[in-house]
Amino acid sequence: MTFKTLEWKNDQLFILDQTRLPLVESYIKCTTYQRVARAIKKMVIRGAPAIGVAAAFGMALGARQTKTRNPLFFRRELLKIANILTTTRPTAVNILWAVERMKRVAEENSKKGVPAVQEILLQEALRILKEDIQANRQMGKHGQILIPAGCSILTHCNAGALATAGYGTALGVIRAAAETGKRIHVFVDETRPFLQGSRLTAWELMKDRIPCTLIADNMAGALMAQGKIHLTIVGADRIAANGDVANKIGTYSLARLCHVHHIPFYVAAPTSTIDLSTKSGEKIPIEHRSPLEITRLQGRPIAPPGVKVLNPAFDVTPNRFIRAIITEKGIVAKPFKSGLKKIILPEN
Amino acid sequence: MTFKTLEWKNDQLFILDQTRLPLVESYIKCTTYQRVARAIKKMVIRGAPAIGVAAAFGMALGARQTKTRNPLFFRRELLKIANILTTTRPTAVNILWAVERMKRVAEENSKKGVPAVQEILLQEALRILKEDIQANRQMGKHGQILIPAGCSILTHCNAGALATAGYGTALGVIRAAAETGKRIHVFVDETRPFLQGSRLTAWELMKDRIPCTLIADNMAGALMAQGKIHLTIVGADRIAANGDVANKIGTYSLARLCHVHHIPFYVAAPTSTIDLSTKSGEKIPIEHRSPLEITRLQGRPIAPPGVKVLNPAFDVTPNRFIRAIITEKGIVAKPFKSGLKKIILPEN
Repeated sequence: MTFKTLEWKNDQLFILDQTRLPLVESYIKCTTYQRVARAIKKMVIRGAPAIGVAAAFGMALGARQTKTRNPLFFRRELLKIANILTTTRPTAVNILWAVERMKRVAEENSKKGVPAVQEILLQEALRILKEDIQANRQMGKHGQILIPAGCSILTHCNAGALATAGYGTALGVIRAAAETGKRIHVFVDETRPFLQGSRLTAWELMKDRIPCTLIADNMAGALMAQGKIHLTIVGADRIAANGDVANKIGTYSLARLCHVHHIPFYVAAPTSTIDLSTKSGEKIPIEHRSPLEITRLQGRPIAPPGVKVLNPAFDVTPNRFIRAIITEKGIVAKPFKSGLKKIILPEN
Repeated sequence: MTFKTLEWKNDQLFILDQTRLPLVESYIKCTTYQRVARAIKKMVIRGAPAIGVAAAFGMALGARQTKTRNPLFFRRELLKIANILTTTRPTAVNILWAVERMKRVAEENSKKGVPAVQEILLQEALRILKEDIQANRQMGKHGQILIPAGCSILTHCNAGALATAGYGTALGVIRAAAETGKRIHVFVDETRPFLQGSRLTAWELMKDRIPCTLIADNMAGALMAQGKIHLTIVGADRIAANGDVANKIGTYSLARLCHVHHIPFYVAAPTSTIDLSTKSGEKIPIEHRSPLEITRLQGRPIAPPGVKVLNPAFDVTPNRFIRAIITEKGIVAKPFKSGLKKIILPEN
């Protein structure tokens, strides 16, 4: 990998600006939590695990911004920062997960004084980053056994190194399969409206020399009918307790199309994406984004002025259309409800 | 309608340049068949019935370009022109249909001398244009009974006035329903890669004040799951004898998604789109277009340089996923094979 999605260096967070990819590789520098929040909101950084890690650094930066030495004022400040970071994007649960973990660490160490907690929070963010990469590697190791040699894989959106701290979830599994020497080919949905597929996934796969072909989203069904797709693998923004999966808009259609064509449909995500407190998919909040994502491209209009637009960023795929969920702790098969619970709360 | 898709005026063919819509309404002037052929190929004019009509005018213009008065040389010239026009775009059968009709008229009148045949061919092209509009009006009249008041309709690509000589096929049915006073709402697939939905269909519907909402193609399935789409209606580029339908890429996915959601899926097309000589869908040639349609937008790159692309312009929907085919001669129900034959060859 010749790039880093995000990196802590010289006491600053550097975030690869994904809105400018694949044409320009540039980094934005964040020294405040406000800057991190804006980067998440504007999708400078996106992908559920990546924005989780970014939010953790947002907490660490926010903690360092506070001038107070009073633990109570510090705690109140931290809760405010947590609130701002968690409301940037509602669907991915990873931000909540990361922010809650940071809050818990702050609580647990509150007796040590503000300066110590500030340092502990930075170390925790760095740990979250490192763990995310490790989780992806593990996911790849577990998941690659599901990828037969010589197969043709469909993926949607970007669940790659760019969607995580590195290596990727769905693309991590694909990478791991390629690393074992299996000959594979990837069809990449361009993924309207934000074009994560054409701009990010194709870019990553080409960098790794994994053979890929870019298609428009609406071509996937026809390719399935022609027998050209052997399996589909995507990431997730939130997995409910029953295994329903919120992921990039268009995922639901693909899962249904896979189902009618008897093509396995897999989801790869770290356990930080699993939300046992959300019973089923219909409870997952779905972010709606600006109509401009659909009516303009690179600032130029591509639709009639004033046209009404619907732009949900995600949809929910019911568990029955998912063959298996690949996590860093192993592959979860049906029934997902007990399988996911066991993987999250192994003591039960 | 405040625009004409194509118009014969002052001995010239004017074609509305659809590549510049919806931002610029401009016409290109054609005085040669070569210009018409290029306009069809570059999709300045597109839509199966519209390019059929344009090809008829191409034949008329080509006939007028020939300097010979020798009927044999004239005939040979006409066949050459026919060949150039029919190879512009392979999937829509309407070009073949119109060119064959023009050739037959030339044959039938060959005894009258070249100048007379030249005039007869022009009159025939004008007749084809007029008949196409009438056919669309009839289609609307027949088809609108399938549109319940208060319903929400999905359409893909542009099967409107812009895809025909006027009024439209699928949009003609929608227009006719709106004209009877039924309250309806249309979801418009933007239709990647050429954006016929956002650029053309949304534009037409807004001009006619028919309420519509633009969506990305990959959103349709999620809307179906939410019960927001009550029926789907699309046009066709070629209908095989068994009722399999070639239409804009993405149509197949929609038909399958409608099927699993128990949503009626209708096709509206004039009988000139029905090709009894093609037994079934797999025999229909599918045009593949330039990768640049996917990797660039308005000339600007949106994908990594050198990425491999697949860009089939059409797909085939098997007859079993189509509820009914709406033609100017009435609604054809299953079994389509006998129904289509009866409508084309009523004498049998």
